[in-house]
Amino acid sequence: DQVREKSPLIHNITNYVTVNDCANIILAAGGTPSMADHIDEVAEALSCVQALVCNMGAIALTDSMIIGGKEANRRKIPVVLDPVGGTQLRRDAAKRLLEEVHFTAIRGNASEIRYLAGQQTTGAGVDVSDLDAITEENLPEAQEMIKNLAKSLGTVIAVSGVIDLVSDGERTMVLRNGCATMS
Amino acid sequence: DQVREKSPLIHNITNYVTVNDCANIILAAGGTPSMADHIDEVAEALSCVQALVCNMGAIALTDSMIIGGKEANRRKIPVVLDPVGGTQLRRDAAKRLLEEVHFTAIRGNASEIRYLAGQQTTGAGVDVSDLDAITEENLPEAQEMIKNLAKSLGTVIAVSGVIDLVSDGERTMVLRNGCATMS
Amino acid sequence: DQVREKSPLIHNITNYVTVNDCANIILAAGGTPSMADHIDEVAEALSCVQALVCNMGAIALTDSMIIGGKEANRRKIPVVLDPVGGTQLRRDAAKRLLEEVHFTAIRGNASEIRYLAGQQTTGAGVDVSDLDAITEENLPEAQEMIKNLAKSLGTVIAVSGVIDLVSDGERTMVLRNGCATMS
Repeated sequence: DQVREKSPLIHNITNYVTVNDCANIILAAGGTPSMADHIDEVAEALSCVQALVCNMGAIALTDSMIIGGKEANRRKIPVVLDPVGGTQLRRDAAKRLLEEVHFTAIRGNASEIRYLAGQQTTGAGVDVSDLDAITEENLPEAQEMIKNLAKSLGTVIAVSGVIDLVSDGERTMVLRNGCATMS
Repeated sequence: DQVREKSPLIHNITNYVTVNDCANIILAAGGTPSMADHIDEVAEALSCVQALVCNMGAIALTDSMIIGGKEANRRKIPVVLDPVGGTQLRRDAAKRLLEEVHFTAIRGNASEIRYLAGQQTTGAGVDVSDLDAITEENLPEAQEMIKNLAKSLGTVIAVSGVIDLVSDGERTMVLRNGCATMS
Repeated sequence: DQVREKSPLIHNITNYVTVNDCANIILAAGGTPSMADHIDEVAEALSCVQALVCNMGAIALTDSMIIGGKEANRRKIPVVLDPVGGTQLRRDAAKRLLEEVHFTAIRGNASEIRYLAGQQTTGAGVDVSDLDAITEENLPEAQEMIKNLAKSLGTVIAVSGVIDLVSDGERTMVLRNGCATMS
């Protein structure tokens, strides 16, 4: 209800595969999407938005994410990182993003978050791998991992999957609302 | 019926957010879409099309729009501009486009058209702002504004919104077929 | 059933018009899509995939297709080419792709395949032209043409249309499952 009342303008630097879905999901949730990603306008475009989302699928736009992220930090606008791993180019980009921008929240699947935490991961493509997924068995280890990552980065970590975990470095929530068929 | 009979090939230089919708809307209307936007082929690609649409959401493709627009002018193919404002980069691009290409028609929301007419606008993101929107109250002023803009650019101006306005600089049509929930 | 059981990771270098549909079609068929197209990561991204698809609609990514295609050849992963013609830039790109990469299969409409075979074509935009289309009348000529093209390139050629043709250079299949309204 609050989102629908305020209708926040959400700026996205994201990839061309899902960008249309991202825009429609923001509209469905009551916000308004904007997508200006050119390096020469991204800082100015942030002057009237309420949040910035950086999706690392748009790897060629890493510099726009850094310029936009720093401007969002300066304006005290929340910045969300949606990490994607799998190649050295992306590992290097993630390192630069985490060094230069303070993210308010980082959301990923378990493979993506484990890789940000410096763990060895087995994820291939965009889905979580079975070995990385959070299960009842590895839940204590996973909770500790994301709590420590949230604390060290001063951010909120959200891991989506069959079991969702959310931690701000102090408290960690376990949500069993997920569904294996919703991958 | 005429569109379905002729099935015109419509060339689009447009942004990656809505490009799939643009292609499907052209197909649904009975035309055929093409989307070749590379600066080294856009002029050649226009040799067999019946119209060109330039959507300024694709700000990085401004040079392709200018090359394509000039070629379309040379071939006497209609060219439509869908302007997007909001940053200095886009204001500069709009100025270049209007100087170098003659547009057959320009379609935008009221914020976008007011900004082309040199008015101060308050639009943020891709939607019209409440202050810029055309209402029964400001209708005379808005009609005058778009009629003058159409005349000075030698084009047809179409403003879409709850109230639609269309002017060729001589006649101005007011259409009350719009719907606030269709934004 | 085999695809659903193995859930292959299919890597795509494709255009921004239909990329979301491509991802969803792969998911619907039981595979998993990946789309990393950056020239600095495409070879590495292929280390865990089961196939590569190169769609020439993404003409600006031709170099990524060549690097990716060569790496796929080295790893003995199948590579599929989806050709798009219509401009000199695309004819040059097709020539480079066929010289530098061995494609396991090439799929196109009759205009696209005729142009790869060196025939004069009349296709405009993304659809087959009436003059190029495969019909009962020109079927013997079309069968000979794709059989020779498949043999000379050492690949499988698939022509989609009202009548589909598939040839590996030895055998040629004629499928009359197509439908004119499915263009």
